[in-house]
Amino acid sequence: MLNLQSESSDRWLHQVRQHLDEILIDHAHCERKAAGTAMSLMSSYVENLELCREMTQIVIEELEHFHLVIDLLQRREIRFRRLKPSSYGKRLNDLVRKHEPQRAIDRLLVAGLIEARSCERFDLLRKHIPDRELAEFYGSLFESEARHHSTYVRLAKIFGTSAEVHDRLKELAADEARILAEGDPLPRMHS
Amino acid sequence: MLNLQSESSDRWLHQVRQHLDEILIDHAHCERKAAGTAMSLMSSYVENLELCREMTQIVIEELEHFHLVIDLLQRREIRFRRLKPSSYGKRLNDLVRKHEPQRAIDRLLVAGLIEARSCERFDLLRKHIPDRELAEFYGSLFESEARHHSTYVRLAKIFGTSAEVHDRLKELAADEARILAEGDPLPRMHS
Repeated sequence: MLNLQSESSDRWLHQVRQHLDEILIDHAHCERKAAGTAMSLMSSYVENLELCREMTQIVIEELEHFHLVIDLLQRREIRFRRLKPSSYGKRLNDLVRKHEPQRAIDRLLVAGLIEARSCERFDLLRKHIPDRELAEFYGSLFESEARHHSTYVRLAKIFGTSAEVHDRLKELAADEARILAEGDPLPRMHS
Repeated sequence: MLNLQSESSDRWLHQVRQHLDEILIDHAHCERKAAGTAMSLMSSYVENLELCREMTQIVIEELEHFHLVIDLLQRREIRFRRLKPSSYGKRLNDLVRKHEPQRAIDRLLVAGLIEARSCERFDLLRKHIPDRELAEFYGSLFESEARHHSTYVRLAKIFGTSAEVHDRLKELAADEARILAEGDPLPRMHS
């Protein structure tokens, strides 16, 4: 369902256990950046009203999640601050082809893969974090990430045939698995 | 209340009467761009939680308005399309100072002045458009633009003293009036 080609490693769960506060702060940034991605896609393809409606919905949901994480940080007295991002997002975005309509397909699929990976990791957090409030929190976010993934894949088909989109999704998912396998020393939601 | 230093001219109302469809399309783009401005301010000053909350609220409201205008265009069978923007936004943004915290103050005040001008023009449209549905529509949007203006001016005071913000607001409002007086041949919400 999520089109991912790997499962997150124990290495990442180890990072989470060692640096939970930092992962939570990064999670807040991820939600905000996901809203920014949807806004930017809307701006690039604004003449497509279906895409606009879906992007608007995603912007609003991601901002709601952003505030849920911020509230959680405040309750735990963890100071929200800027963090250097992991290399994951940049490396994925570097794979986006330069010319339209391939560019639109790739931007949507990359956004969709990031949602898929978040979804897979929220599921892991839900299962592996002993902290009950957090486990429930990640359980509650899980479903919307899966839905956003499907939305992005569906919208990519506005710009190419179904076969084309699925072939490209396989390629990008292989790249995504490779990038993640190489890891990142910074403890992040996508390290 | 709106801190503007001029009233919109008859020249603009003449443009509206001659090119109402184009003004409506531009209005949809303005709402979307206003959401983008708020998102971008949030991203730049993300560590200020008050600012984040207000920007989130504005993003959501502007996107709601964007869809209201899009729906109105659809009901009137006006094709939504890209439009070359008027020079107004760019010329105002060129006035933003380069260094922080002055940059933050200016970005917020410029956003606030654009909201103020929209508010003033929605009021004019409400009074001068013979089309009843449109007149009511602009009446319904009027209040939120005024509120956004106040929010932006209030948030600017996070980054400077009240006196500093009010002096700069006066300067920028004078520039805004000058830019608008020079006009733009393209019929736009801010021409």
